[in-house]
Amino acid sequence: MGKLLRVNTREKTFGFEEVAETYAGLGGRALTSKMILDEVPATCHPLGKANKLIFAPGILAGSPAADSGRLSAGAKSPLTGGIKESNAGGLVSQKLARLGIAAIVLEDKPETDNYSIIVINNDGVEILPAGDLAGKGNYAVMESMWEKYGKNVGVLSIGQAGEQCLKGASINQADMNGRPGRAHGRGGLGAVMGAKKIKAIVVNDKGAPRVEIKDPDAFKAANKKWVDMLKNHPVTGQGLPALGTAVLVNVINEAGAFPTKNFRSGRFEHAQDISGEKIAECIEQRGGITTEPCHPGCVIKCSNVYHDKEGKYLTSGFEYETIWAFGAHATIKELDDIAMLDRLCDDFGLDTIETGVALGIAMEGGMIPWGDGKAAIDLLSKVGDYAPEGKIIGNGALFTGDALGVDRVPVVKKQAFPAYDPRSCKGVGVTYATTPMGADHTAGYGVTANILGVGGTIDSLKKEGNIELSQGLQVATAAIDAAGLCLFVAFAVLDNEDGLSTIVSMINARFGLSLTPDDVLELGKSILNNEKEFNRKAGFTDIDDQLPEMFQETFPPHNTTWDFTLEELSGTLKF
Amino acid sequence: MGKLLRVNTREKTFGFEEVAETYAGLGGRALTSKMILDEVPATCHPLGKANKLIFAPGILAGSPAADSGRLSAGAKSPLTGGIKESNAGGLVSQKLARLGIAAIVLEDKPETDNYSIIVINNDGVEILPAGDLAGKGNYAVMESMWEKYGKNVGVLSIGQAGEQCLKGASINQADMNGRPGRAHGRGGLGAVMGAKKIKAIVVNDKGAPRVEIKDPDAFKAANKKWVDMLKNHPVTGQGLPALGTAVLVNVINEAGAFPTKNFRSGRFEHAQDISGEKIAECIEQRGGITTEPCHPGCVIKCSNVYHDKEGKYLTSGFEYETIWAFGAHATIKELDDIAMLDRLCDDFGLDTIETGVALGIAMEGGMIPWGDGKAAIDLLSKVGDYAPEGKIIGNGALFTGDALGVDRVPVVKKQAFPAYDPRSCKGVGVTYATTPMGADHTAGYGVTANILGVGGTIDSLKKEGNIELSQGLQVATAAIDAAGLCLFVAFAVLDNEDGLSTIVSMINARFGLSLTPDDVLELGKSILNNEKEFNRKAGFTDIDDQLPEMFQETFPPHNTTWDFTLEELSGTLKF
Repeated sequence: MGKLLRVNTREKTFGFEEVAETYAGLGGRALTSKMILDEVPATCHPLGKANKLIFAPGILAGSPAADSGRLSAGAKSPLTGGIKESNAGGLVSQKLARLGIAAIVLEDKPETDNYSIIVINNDGVEILPAGDLAGKGNYAVMESMWEKYGKNVGVLSIGQAGEQCLKGASINQADMNGRPGRAHGRGGLGAVMGAKKIKAIVVNDKGAPRVEIKDPDAFKAANKKWVDMLKNHPVTGQGLPALGTAVLVNVINEAGAFPTKNFRSGRFEHAQDISGEKIAECIEQRGGITTEPCHPGCVIKCSNVYHDKEGKYLTSGFEYETIWAFGAHATIKELDDIAMLDRLCDDFGLDTIETGVALGIAMEGGMIPWGDGKAAIDLLSKVGDYAPEGKIIGNGALFTGDALGVDRVPVVKKQAFPAYDPRSCKGVGVTYATTPMGADHTAGYGVTANILGVGGTIDSLKKEGNIELSQGLQVATAAIDAAGLCLFVAFAVLDNEDGLSTIVSMINARFGLSLTPDDVLELGKSILNNEKEFNRKAGFTDIDDQLPEMFQETFPPHNTTWDFTLEELSGTLKF
Repeated sequence: MGKLLRVNTREKTFGFEEVAETYAGLGGRALTSKMILDEVPATCHPLGKANKLIFAPGILAGSPAADSGRLSAGAKSPLTGGIKESNAGGLVSQKLARLGIAAIVLEDKPETDNYSIIVINNDGVEILPAGDLAGKGNYAVMESMWEKYGKNVGVLSIGQAGEQCLKGASINQADMNGRPGRAHGRGGLGAVMGAKKIKAIVVNDKGAPRVEIKDPDAFKAANKKWVDMLKNHPVTGQGLPALGTAVLVNVINEAGAFPTKNFRSGRFEHAQDISGEKIAECIEQRGGITTEPCHPGCVIKCSNVYHDKEGKYLTSGFEYETIWAFGAHATIKELDDIAMLDRLCDDFGLDTIETGVALGIAMEGGMIPWGDGKAAIDLLSKVGDYAPEGKIIGNGALFTGDALGVDRVPVVKKQAFPAYDPRSCKGVGVTYATTPMGADHTAGYGVTANILGVGGTIDSLKKEGNIELSQGLQVATAAIDAAGLCLFVAFAVLDNEDGLSTIVSMINARFGLSLTPDDVLELGKSILNNEKEFNRKAGFTDIDDQLPEMFQETFPPHNTTWDFTLEELSGTLKF
């Protein structure tokens, strides 16, 4: 492992330190969550000086292991008030690993309104005035950073949303084309970066050595097996590479789990118009890229580049959850409007799930008409104007609901639901309810066995087996997030009896260890325990694992309801 | 006791029912809190159909007992998410008692946007369309109701804030001049009434009999003693009747406990300009009423009527907490601007404490300049325009802070602090921290022994004795709120060894009971236990009894900090 880079954002000073014993061997989510538990007072204000914003590559980062380039960002969340880890692709993770940096830790906060940028390279660290970058969107920031510091530098930045400390604010990463298509989206971490007045972090690994592999032969063999596994699985080898994540639109809609018009039904009549198939058709006609990787070394390649009617670049990383949130949830059926909303979110630095759900709530509250894409674009644009309407929408679904007096708001722990209804995909519903993150599909993607037939089959409409499904997935996911692997590798791992052991072989070969799969699962449990403990200290109880009353409504087409009791759920994450 | 009047706001139906055994003998806060605990699911959405809004006169209501005309309003609070009781003067309480109504219970909610009014009189109940009252402010509503239903009818109504379901929304009561100068201010109960689409409730006791007194002679004797006690105490007999509650401005400022510029210091350099003495001077010059009662039968008479420079009516019920919130907290020194802000709050139906603190936070966040009364008036006016700025301010201090990214927000359980700094008035600080209501001075007014020398003396700057002080006051206050007595009677009760027994004598004579003072204190404890239990079921823990980080800052002029640990506080309300 490398060193910790601590930056005092008030003093504009930094220092490298050895990783303390208590953090040794931890990476990604394992490191961010442990550091937050140990170093951040659980009841502090998320925008105050006591909160810390931590970026940590996974333990496989920088190695040739396929799909190991996810970066974890962690802090006390301004959205949920609990602990948060949000990971993203992009270029930063692998570069930090090569620079020997186990984590960047942003501490304290300035008393002035001046923004800084942090430039990290092989020669050292600089903390510089952000100058005219302040007030700019992520597109302009990324372009400026690539121009100034070289193409292919890693960039983490915030747009106008993070500067305003909005609860929906993301931290965006330059994608492989230098655009802000990748995002640490969930939980408002961009607001923490904004409170600390850091506009951007640039990471340049020029001149840095490759990461050391203790047993290169063993690593190579394990990685080959790993790549084969990913390429041979129908989801990671075919579905996602063919159509990107939007392949799910028709699948989830067909399953009756595609939440439509603020979770009133599971089928959207215009699903076909916003499907992965439709996107591929547009890209064929207009140009763009149907699938591309979110970070070097990815073999799944589920990202994309989407052009407008004139054939000009419109947005990238145009994904299923985004399309659902602005589409079925807010009942917008024009794909180009949805793409523009995605672009605005990337530019302002906003989580597309939180923001899409918020726009649907704005429709529920009568602020704009249902399904009106142009009105949604106008309203979202107010975030860039620093206008009051933008401060409402940009603060997310619950805030928007509270502003407008709406009592049907799909949130757990104040975070908006993603694109699968918990009543007709109960495995992911258990995850929404129980993960310390707030409603989050990526914390335990029960869609696998519920709908995709991956890792077995568990009836999506019944309770039986879904607590166990979510539990197993949450433990495995925490470990995957600690390794820095993309969540989607889970598809192949679940359907392969050698899946987990192959990951463990890569870790062992990288560090000269002799871990077992059980050790890795224990790590997963310890991460969840740390996160639960932070939340407990922040005032959360089992009662916060409840879904809102609206999920007691009967949900067509399967006419199911959310019927887990808190008592049934209470053991999900007790280890 | 009377009957319960239950109104189904969706069906527009009503029914009278006998008071169930479990509620027998309870009035005011004792009844509202017990009913909410028993009938409202603790995790429901406060604006949803499962919440109930309950109005209950105290058990002495309608009797000749001095100062017994306070009405309790209760519900799950949209502001705090916990249980709420907020009581006010006005005309409704005594009229309900004479009509034999122990409580009005508003249930369910309509699915349409049409408002209704409820008219209650001796012949029965009508639920009528609100017609053109919808969208109007409380001044217009009250005027219209008095014109239509007769001068001196009791009126409960909401303004534009309640209609928008804002968390700062009050329910206002017609005062003795038919103006909305009285308010169930705290906790956003106006939003619950708005969600249930009830614009106003009119209560007319014409033709109703007097309330029965079981032992008239004993009652008369006890009440005479009671009146003498109130009239002979320096606070209730001299200070409050002379200058109204604003008499406290100079007193609390002198004590260094007058929170200034968002709780940065305990003395406001312009305190004299907004003092009770200054108000009395203005009233002498311009006309108005220096002191008048908030309900018939009050002998303290701490309310007032304030005119503008032209000698025309500007506002009434212009009180200490209001003057502090817009004044010292937001550093506005022009009394007429503060009076206009008070008037706007009464008209829109907004809690002046929550709204004043919110305006200070808007200044902290740079939305308007510090101390700019005109800018504050313009911003507050947006509530009446249903504009986005109004939805921010009208949702209170924490919401405004969250909208603007401000991390110095003085709230406990999401409710804004009143006008006494907890670092230099620690007895009231303990109350802010531990009352189930959220920061609320009226729940246990430790200012008594801390600053006013009433009920003994406890050092306001030290911890010693202040937990016990708050505990005793919280128990006594709960009982006073159940009786329907004005909180200010506590001054006389605390300094009189016959105080409590005199109240008990009136209750015994009214109902033919033989309660002891201990019974009444046990009632106080049971109310607090019910409220704590509701909050526990809603997800609150001891951690929610914490003051925000900002109170660890040293507070001039006494340079004290908030130094109670959660462990020390945890026993305050354990009985």
